[in-house]
Amino acid sequence: MNDLFLRACRGEVTERRPVWIMRQAGRYLPEYRAVREKVDFLTLCKTPELAARVTLQPVEILGVDAAILFADILLPLEAMGAELVFTPGDGPTFPRPVRGREGIARLRAPAVEESLGYVFDALRLVRRELAGRVPVIGFGGTPWTLAAYLVEGGGSRHFEHLLAWSYADPAGLAELLDRIAETSLAYLSAQIDAGAQALQLFDTWGGLLDAERWRALALPPLARVVAGLAGRVPLIYYVNGGSHLLEALADLPVDVLAVDWRQPLSRVRARLGTRTLQGNLDPAALLAPVPEIERRVATLLEQGRGGGHIVNLGHGILPVTPVEHARAFVAAAQRLSAQHATEAGPAHAAR
Amino acid sequence: MNDLFLRACRGEVTERRPVWIMRQAGRYLPEYRAVREKVDFLTLCKTPELAARVTLQPVEILGVDAAILFADILLPLEAMGAELVFTPGDGPTFPRPVRGREGIARLRAPAVEESLGYVFDALRLVRRELAGRVPVIGFGGTPWTLAAYLVEGGGSRHFEHLLAWSYADPAGLAELLDRIAETSLAYLSAQIDAGAQALQLFDTWGGLLDAERWRALALPPLARVVAGLAGRVPLIYYVNGGSHLLEALADLPVDVLAVDWRQPLSRVRARLGTRTLQGNLDPAALLAPVPEIERRVATLLEQGRGGGHIVNLGHGILPVTPVEHARAFVAAAQRLSAQHATEAGPAHAAR
Repeated sequence: MNDLFLRACRGEVTERRPVWIMRQAGRYLPEYRAVREKVDFLTLCKTPELAARVTLQPVEILGVDAAILFADILLPLEAMGAELVFTPGDGPTFPRPVRGREGIARLRAPAVEESLGYVFDALRLVRRELAGRVPVIGFGGTPWTLAAYLVEGGGSRHFEHLLAWSYADPAGLAELLDRIAETSLAYLSAQIDAGAQALQLFDTWGGLLDAERWRALALPPLARVVAGLAGRVPLIYYVNGGSHLLEALADLPVDVLAVDWRQPLSRVRARLGTRTLQGNLDPAALLAPVPEIERRVATLLEQGRGGGHIVNLGHGILPVTPVEHARAFVAAAQRLSAQHATEAGPAHAAR
Repeated sequence: MNDLFLRACRGEVTERRPVWIMRQAGRYLPEYRAVREKVDFLTLCKTPELAARVTLQPVEILGVDAAILFADILLPLEAMGAELVFTPGDGPTFPRPVRGREGIARLRAPAVEESLGYVFDALRLVRRELAGRVPVIGFGGTPWTLAAYLVEGGGSRHFEHLLAWSYADPAGLAELLDRIAETSLAYLSAQIDAGAQALQLFDTWGGLLDAERWRALALPPLARVVAGLAGRVPLIYYVNGGSHLLEALADLPVDVLAVDWRQPLSRVRARLGTRTLQGNLDPAALLAPVPEIERRVATLLEQGRGGGHIVNLGHGILPVTPVEHARAFVAAAQRLSAQHATEAGPAHAAR
């Protein structure tokens, strides 16, 4: 029974630091590609046995200290009535993007148990299969990030429809964000009911906003989700490209702040204190030779001192990553952080 | 004779703040689209009369305080022997990307006067047509950013070939960066010879690196270019998504630091002192109603106090921007900063 990850989330002193990898269930694994060859992406998400199987693969192959549910952050938007299409190469698209108040009227507040039941079934299967070996993390996008995709109709270079709306009719956009927050809260609560032992909130596009606008636009619906989940399981917040938001994030009441690779954890630590941090090796560093990966893990462990630290990458693992490099990363984090604890006292000694 | 922009670059106290717009010659202007309907993008770049015409359009239509040469940052790479293709929709691609030392061997150090003569011809035409009305800015990509495109073969989501190379064989990548720096220096020097009165260096992808790696990889070839141009004309450096690089940039000997929209100028000012800053309205703010644009310009002017300030956006103008909004931005910057100077003393009073 390895509950190291959960104890680190709660800020407890641990005998070594836990490690997992964002997007650890995915394309870099031959075992994942073998499953994907037989079904398309949405079918994989919606078939609990298959979603559970790929969720478990990295636990078995890499020996990570947590599983994370295999799913897509856009699924709750589909449940709200937005048609979602995955086209190979192009990624996810919403053929009818929501770009104004009339678009909001087309959305519904779904009964998540029914429309997203396959997610909860997958979670229950994962819990049963894991039988306590490691915890399982559920996840969702933040309202701002989900809205970004829904308004643009998919990924975007400049997110100009979203940003135009934010300047021209902020109250209208806030209504969309509220609707998304409502469904997100129901969806994430049901993930906990189905067995998720922690939740990570992905704010992939939060970094588009300066701190003042992040506080005005992105934070209120996010705070509503966080407040609705408070006290149930540990919450992890991840923002990409958000170095400029550090001060704003200090007030967000989540247990763990996941940090991208752009700034050293020691710098984040200096501003945010002993809060548990997660991250943040550059995903591209896993393309380096193994001794270089190990050297960088040692530096990362040094930078993470002074408070809780869950080792991870600073962004999703790249599909071109060799599996043995991912394994070396996990092994080095586990081995070196145990030495660290032994040689220099508990990892959180500075708290 | 409006040399306000050049005086602001040199850190002189000015009667009002100059303003121009990144990508001011471009798709949002019907007059530009009329030219582009007749020729493809590369032909436009390589026909001095047409490049000069679109360079001048925003001076006449918006009343900006500087012209910036119409060109593409990738042109010197083509001159180095890398085949460059612009496909509508996909943007620029290099069908034979350079991904290792054998690729470097295919590149040449071009005689820029010959292979890029059309750029210098356009600059000479622009200078003649402007006849001193406003200065003209030349520009180029930084070696790191140019290498990013050349290694990936175009734009990229994760730049994994570039980053993989940077970890696996940093010395090999440094050789490529040196080769690009050498050609960039020749190209930018020749722009000055042809009449460019200032130069902006675009580091579009510098923000992919953390500060330590930026100093190790991106800075040496950039410093070589900057040193080679020092003292000739004012140099402006722009990095996108580089909030985490602020301390590293403090030591870069350029006259002007152009700042993206993510952090307020007042914060940059607090760390970098009286150095002239350029920027940094969110380009999407030009999609707001005009009174909101004017309100945000007033805030921007306030945030820019305490040193030199050239008003601009924090990234290129969006193609969907209404021309009258761009005009309102320029007019507000000119009107409100003159009031500022009158009411509250010179804009640089705090120096």
